[in-house]
Amino acid sequence: MTRSQSPERKESPNRTPSRTGMRLIVPLQGVVQGRGGLILGSLIPCALFYFLQFYLKRHRSQPRQRSASAANLPDLQRSSSRANLLARGSTVRAHVSARASPVAKPNDSPYYIGLDRLREDPYDEAANPEGVIQLGLAENRLSLDIIEAWLSRNLTGSMLGVGSDALGLTRLAAYQPMDGLMAFKVAMADFMTEVMGRTVPFDPSRLVLTSGATPAVEILSFCLADQGNAFLVPAPYYPGFDRDIKWRAGVELIPVHCRHCDNFTLNKLALEQAFNQARKRGQKVRGILISNPSNPVGNILNRDMMYDLLDFAKTRNIHIISDEIFAGSTYGDEEFVSMAEIVDLEDIDKDRVHIIYGLSKDFSIPGFRVGAIYTYNENVLAAARKLTRFSSVSTPTQQLLISMLSDKQFTLDYIKINRQRLRMMYDLFVAGLRELGLECAKSSGGLYCWVNMSSLMSTYSDKRELELWDKLLNEAKINVTPGSACHCIEPGWFRFCFTTLSEKDIPVVIERIRRVVKSFKPSV
Amino acid sequence: MTRSQSPERKESPNRTPSRTGMRLIVPLQGVVQGRGGLILGSLIPCALFYFLQFYLKRHRSQPRQRSASAANLPDLQRSSSRANLLARGSTVRAHVSARASPVAKPNDSPYYIGLDRLREDPYDEAANPEGVIQLGLAENRLSLDIIEAWLSRNLTGSMLGVGSDALGLTRLAAYQPMDGLMAFKVAMADFMTEVMGRTVPFDPSRLVLTSGATPAVEILSFCLADQGNAFLVPAPYYPGFDRDIKWRAGVELIPVHCRHCDNFTLNKLALEQAFNQARKRGQKVRGILISNPSNPVGNILNRDMMYDLLDFAKTRNIHIISDEIFAGSTYGDEEFVSMAEIVDLEDIDKDRVHIIYGLSKDFSIPGFRVGAIYTYNENVLAAARKLTRFSSVSTPTQQLLISMLSDKQFTLDYIKINRQRLRMMYDLFVAGLRELGLECAKSSGGLYCWVNMSSLMSTYSDKRELELWDKLLNEAKINVTPGSACHCIEPGWFRFCFTTLSEKDIPVVIERIRRVVKSFKPSV
Repeated sequence: MTRSQSPERKESPNRTPSRTGMRLIVPLQGVVQGRGGLILGSLIPCALFYFLQFYLKRHRSQPRQRSASAANLPDLQRSSSRANLLARGSTVRAHVSARASPVAKPNDSPYYIGLDRLREDPYDEAANPEGVIQLGLAENRLSLDIIEAWLSRNLTGSMLGVGSDALGLTRLAAYQPMDGLMAFKVAMADFMTEVMGRTVPFDPSRLVLTSGATPAVEILSFCLADQGNAFLVPAPYYPGFDRDIKWRAGVELIPVHCRHCDNFTLNKLALEQAFNQARKRGQKVRGILISNPSNPVGNILNRDMMYDLLDFAKTRNIHIISDEIFAGSTYGDEEFVSMAEIVDLEDIDKDRVHIIYGLSKDFSIPGFRVGAIYTYNENVLAAARKLTRFSSVSTPTQQLLISMLSDKQFTLDYIKINRQRLRMMYDLFVAGLRELGLECAKSSGGLYCWVNMSSLMSTYSDKRELELWDKLLNEAKINVTPGSACHCIEPGWFRFCFTTLSEKDIPVVIERIRRVVKSFKPSV
Repeated sequence: MTRSQSPERKESPNRTPSRTGMRLIVPLQGVVQGRGGLILGSLIPCALFYFLQFYLKRHRSQPRQRSASAANLPDLQRSSSRANLLARGSTVRAHVSARASPVAKPNDSPYYIGLDRLREDPYDEAANPEGVIQLGLAENRLSLDIIEAWLSRNLTGSMLGVGSDALGLTRLAAYQPMDGLMAFKVAMADFMTEVMGRTVPFDPSRLVLTSGATPAVEILSFCLADQGNAFLVPAPYYPGFDRDIKWRAGVELIPVHCRHCDNFTLNKLALEQAFNQARKRGQKVRGILISNPSNPVGNILNRDMMYDLLDFAKTRNIHIISDEIFAGSTYGDEEFVSMAEIVDLEDIDKDRVHIIYGLSKDFSIPGFRVGAIYTYNENVLAAARKLTRFSSVSTPTQQLLISMLSDKQFTLDYIKINRQRLRMMYDLFVAGLRELGLECAKSSGGLYCWVNMSSLMSTYSDKRELELWDKLLNEAKINVTPGSACHCIEPGWFRFCFTTLSEKDIPVVIERIRRVVKSFKPSV
């Protein structure tokens, strides 16, 4: 054996075998066709390659181990009767998995930091008038009185049954199908049909019910994409998607940037570009996730864009996830059209369309934890049903909602009155902002407005945006969501949720914002 | 090039690509040291290698597409207004992810097939006396009357509040911490302390509440192990663990076989062997998952074994997950000891111990979907809390249970009476089996007994066991769980859950079993 062979052979087992072999063959061929430099020509690149691998390996694994051991600080006390048994063995601390490690870390998104801050010091007109006012959470408290009135009349009957309907506790206590009782699916499908303007009948057999829309998004992600695949998402988008889709399902989100000049509507060219760039990077795009009405902007997809999306999804052979959780919370002049309506009309390519819905927004009861997947794809339906073992809705809650949603007069009144109140609050709030010289993007739905505050920034950057957010949170004591938390490409935009306020809170909020605006523009 | 070389080269490309590269280098070096065949010697294997990659790529993705398209049968109709938009592009069917594909498939475990069968044709004394009787589901209906009586007195007050306690709907409807209300954690911790015999106080701040014990197991699996890591599990084990732990968390389960001669208790030697074998195979073991009282056997871990387990976990630097969901459902003479008690006494190595609990078994309300993780590990606590966004408990259900579990006299009475009824039913049922010549493993807890039916099998095999199971299900019309579904290594054992029966059902069930026994042993 010559010297030229031995280093090669000795070192080769240290590599990750998959790609290295092919990369070696080409330089080797070059070398052997020349006359000299065989040893150097093969040794040097190999050696460099190995050192790089060692460096990368150490660089990648160390911080993880360090952070795990640093965070587990409990003191190690040996004691008493079983010390002999327990004393031997290593004293290594038990550490969490690599994938749980980033989840365990403190929140770093301003969206979650703001919510934490609010929990510590919530505003209360009487008890804590200097506390933080919530404008960072898309929760609707405008119409809770209507639901409360219904509950006070019907609670016991709806849960335990009345008279000859009394089925006893078994129907509440026993194991039930994890994807929801059929009666609840029927009630939900009817409610969805009503909320979406009776333009399309929803079929209860296509529904899978989950403990909130959050697990619905996760289950769909798991079913439509494999670990490391990606979804396109028009940005700005709801900050929670990063957790819902990346944390456990391991699906990447590729923002498709929407801009102020288009009123943040989706641009076909940007969509194509994002898809092609992902493909060039070697990422496998498996779907596009849209929210309609959009969160955080509040605008609505028009029919043409929906056809374009269907066409795009078909050409690229990807799925469409249409998050329509704000479908009933519209107040503007634009018409909301469900993806279900389009797909139903055309009767084409249904099996790549999946709709997310829930009762947390339109029906104001996020605490009840009710979400839904509506899908035309039989395989997704079968898998999602089984996966609800991890995210099922409590049966007492289902029974209560079966009664409530089946009371048609009640739901119709609720939807109508809630829309009126939403519009009124929107008008009041936007008028208040306008007085301060702050404009919102044009919107027609959702529980928020998307406010342009770039005029309050000395320079146009994410850093300045975060400074402004901090000022709003810690000086003006209002919690809002900065655009950067929603992956907005243009700095200076903020989401203000106005539906946790009552009418009398609006002047208080506007006054607090005025203080901040004044520090930049003394004339206001 | 000699003929002796070429088969070697031709065959190498047929292997998985990861190893091929390295195997190519060695022959290449051989070639370059020779004098001829340089071009062929390097070009042919390279070309073959590339063709192989193309082949593998097509071969891997095609069957998936085929199965997806075969299952999705919707006809492709082009229609109306937007046909021009929708008609172009490919007609490929949208397919589900590779990981969801096995989940979507029909159930193949006898455990789930039995449950499906029961749903189609459930026994009812009056309406369907020839239907299938449920002995395959660990659900307790013995004490529902006690809970029902409490509910009929307290439902409205507990959910909406009464008098000055009435907080209005906001406390039910609003977003709440996803890992459970603190008041609910306090009530759960107190109930756990009571159920586990008041030997150890449970600390509410270590609790994470989930929508059932199923997501609790999944969340812990995600937090303690990475994809492809493994847990050791004493077998026979609960059939649901395969879904809870493998499906999404991607953690493998390695059975540690327990045997009849040890009354199916865990054997230290078998544990060591399973661990060492896994290590030899290159599997990374991250924990051991025990159920105590065990499901399906019903036996209880003694203190010595618990110390051994802690010692084993420490020496091997792995976690212990102690599933104690049947802690309050004990009826025998053996003392139940919670892992929390041992860890609390010794104050050592706490951060590798995690307990699973829930209200589905001891408190008879699986439909309420309430499970819990109790952990001493701060990182696991932090991650698990955040992961409850996917598996949170409905607030109305929490409010109801806060009232119910805080009524101490009620819970104490319930626990006591439920234990008495459990013991009575166990005695009745086991006596009935004994009359038929069928013996059970010694047990002290759980809602089932573990019955030896090997005397009814002509040969000692899994095949015969499944035939017997089929006979019980389809001829005798009783749904039980065969040992093979629980990964039991000895054929002929079955789990019979007796707590969905009423007293008067027992003679009916025993009579149905007698018919099967008689077909093997006419003397019975």
